[in-house]
Amino acid sequence: LNQQIASLPTTIFTVMSALAARHDAINLGQGFPDTEGPAHLIEAAAAALRDGRNQYAPLAGLPELREAVARSCARFYSLTIDPATEVVVTSGATEAIAVSLAALVNPGDEIIVIEPAYDTYLPVIRLLGAVPRLVRLTPPDWSVPREDLAAAFSPKTKAILLNSPMNPCGKVFTPGELGFIAGLVQKHDAYAICDEVYEHLTFGVRHIPLMTLPGMRERCLRIGSAGKSFSLTGWKVGYITAPAPLAAVVAKAHQNLVFATAPNLQRAVAVGLDQDTAYFTILAQDMMLRRDILAAGLREIGFGVLPCDGTYFLTADISSLGSVVQPGESDQDWCKRMTAEAGVALIPVSAFYDTAGSKPPTHLVRFAFCKKPLVLEEALTRLRDRV
Amino acid sequence: LNQQIASLPTTIFTVMSALAARHDAINLGQGFPDTEGPAHLIEAAAAALRDGRNQYAPLAGLPELREAVARSCARFYSLTIDPATEVVVTSGATEAIAVSLAALVNPGDEIIVIEPAYDTYLPVIRLLGAVPRLVRLTPPDWSVPREDLAAAFSPKTKAILLNSPMNPCGKVFTPGELGFIAGLVQKHDAYAICDEVYEHLTFGVRHIPLMTLPGMRERCLRIGSAGKSFSLTGWKVGYITAPAPLAAVVAKAHQNLVFATAPNLQRAVAVGLDQDTAYFTILAQDMMLRRDILAAGLREIGFGVLPCDGTYFLTADISSLGSVVQPGESDQDWCKRMTAEAGVALIPVSAFYDTAGSKPPTHLVRFAFCKKPLVLEEALTRLRDRV
Ligand SMILES: CSCCC(=O)C(=O)O
Ligand SMILES: CSCCC(=O)C(=O)O
Repeated sequence: LNQQIASLPTTIFTVMSALAARHDAINLGQGFPDTEGPAHLIEAAAAALRDGRNQYAPLAGLPELREAVARSCARFYSLTIDPATEVVVTSGATEAIAVSLAALVNPGDEIIVIEPAYDTYLPVIRLLGAVPRLVRLTPPDWSVPREDLAAAFSPKTKAILLNSPMNPCGKVFTPGELGFIAGLVQKHDAYAICDEVYEHLTFGVRHIPLMTLPGMRERCLRIGSAGKSFSLTGWKVGYITAPAPLAAVVAKAHQNLVFATAPNLQRAVAVGLDQDTAYFTILAQDMMLRRDILAAGLREIGFGVLPCDGTYFLTADISSLGSVVQPGESDQDWCKRMTAEAGVALIPVSAFYDTAGSKPPTHLVRFAFCKKPLVLEEALTRLRDRV
Repeated sequence: LNQQIASLPTTIFTVMSALAARHDAINLGQGFPDTEGPAHLIEAAAAALRDGRNQYAPLAGLPELREAVARSCARFYSLTIDPATEVVVTSGATEAIAVSLAALVNPGDEIIVIEPAYDTYLPVIRLLGAVPRLVRLTPPDWSVPREDLAAAFSPKTKAILLNSPMNPCGKVFTPGELGFIAGLVQKHDAYAICDEVYEHLTFGVRHIPLMTLPGMRERCLRIGSAGKSFSLTGWKVGYITAPAPLAAVVAKAHQNLVFATAPNLQRAVAVGLDQDTAYFTILAQDMMLRRDILAAGLREIGFGVLPCDGTYFLTADISSLGSVVQPGESDQDWCKRMTAEAGVALIPVSAFYDTAGSKPPTHLVRFAFCKKPLVLEEALTRLRDRV
């Protein structure tokens, strides 16, 4: 069997969701909202099933969705995207990442990955015979170690994989950081795969696609997610915008790995992207409220709360909790114990580090706050009682 | 960019569908029915959108679909499959093929591929750094060249990729052929990836999954397709059944390449699989009727009609058409010319052969007959007028 794949652990999100179910715990682990997305999108998806378009969609996506993606790039980022040649619809952002990598890398190429990193990045890079070059952000402020980052680029660098807003640390890269990264990418004639699935979930700061920086339009593959933008994570509809010559190769990777995505879901997502700007503003405000409830509650309990400017996620330091963490207990063990003992499931941040690398931080945990305020309050009560 | 992917042509199905649209031709190219699947499945998919289950499905698939897949294996093939550990739901059979290969191969491994081969097989094998070993069936009866097949196996053989019922040639492998293949797989301690998406579309012969042969239960990954079984090709729901240790690795490949599949479509497919046996019988009878209309009409016009015992597809020999084929004209050129001149789009069989290999047959074309009888009659009239 494939050694790389066979040796992978089951994703921590599934492990913790299963454990949450077993202990009837509140699941602040896997990042999915506990409220459904807009009813009119769900109705649009249902209606679209009924008018005789249930055969293969075009492999790059339905024209109506590709056009809506292009309109949304224009509205939010003043980016001019040609829907016919610069958009590829995928079966979720996970597939978008895989096909972007498949389109770019040849065996032996290097890909810069910033840790903590989303858990599919390294396995896919390695499956393709490429080599990840890892650079760690520095907690507690998750700052970019610029010298390390510059040193990670080499003549073999094909691309950097940049996730902003960033899971798990809730970081939104600043204009200064993005400029620094853009400079490195151009200096080394590389590409950037920009995982921007949380683009509409920022709290008081502006998300800036790397693609909008001078000289970066031709070097970026930008990935968006309907699941995250419309609170419908199960639909698994993603989209990639990229310059036409790159998008054409991405489409071929998609053609061979998945081929196409359900037409009715694509049509409903097009409706979602065309919603009034107010929808996106309210989505972010609503999520910020939840972040604030969770952050205040955790602080009160004694957690060290790290900054969070975007995403569904907040990271917290458990080393300030004293004896609640047992001597030598890892974040992984602690999360599992809390699921059982406090009835609250969360994710150890060490799960976002290469298992083959040097020791990751083991004092940080991730909470998903994309849950009802009452659910967050109840989780805080449970943690307070136990901690 | 990835040399392998970048150098691929756009899939012939998309090329011919686009050409058909441009010339307002009847599209007997890409294999999709022109009639929607059962209305109650479409209604089940719509209803399932409305009861609050639009977040991530479990990565291996919803329990209700995995159980329906297992029941269907028991009903049709007397196979005992554990739904909890031996079924993985995918976003279509194309993804199922990709993740089965990703789970099995290490770079340098050899995969036996039978030509004419479905067009995603070779690109995915090569993307993973594995090496295809090609064996050509012999037209006009598409018989298995047993010596060639035996000789293709080597100590490096990881698996054979077997498509039965087989696209494009409409071949259903016989018990004798399957026994021969099973013997080779066991002798070389290899696996078989069994692409059985047309399992319910056979005409007067029985489809036998290789997995049901003695000694093969532990060596097979069996792939099914809701799109093909329920005439809803756009939904892109597939399923793999495999022994638990293999299924676990396949699930990890799926986790990293796509992750999960839309819950509402999964639930509707479960309803589809649990339909009365009569549904599947009628589906096949209905398709056989269409094959018969097309075969008789083509024969009358002067095509050499090759045998067809299953799938959506019939292959025909154009060399018997005389001057209708121009001197030196390839099947590809002829298909494009007929789309424009006769208004009937079809697929050149040479598109199913490795472009890097020795010269493929260029006198064979593929017709999709999964179309309304009146549409087939009209296509035959157009061809008769032109030929
Ligand atoms: C695809 S399951 C994981 C969801 C998610 O993005 C997360 O929890 O980090
Ligand atoms: C995935 S598009 C091609 C459909 C098909 O299986 C075929 O026409 O052979």
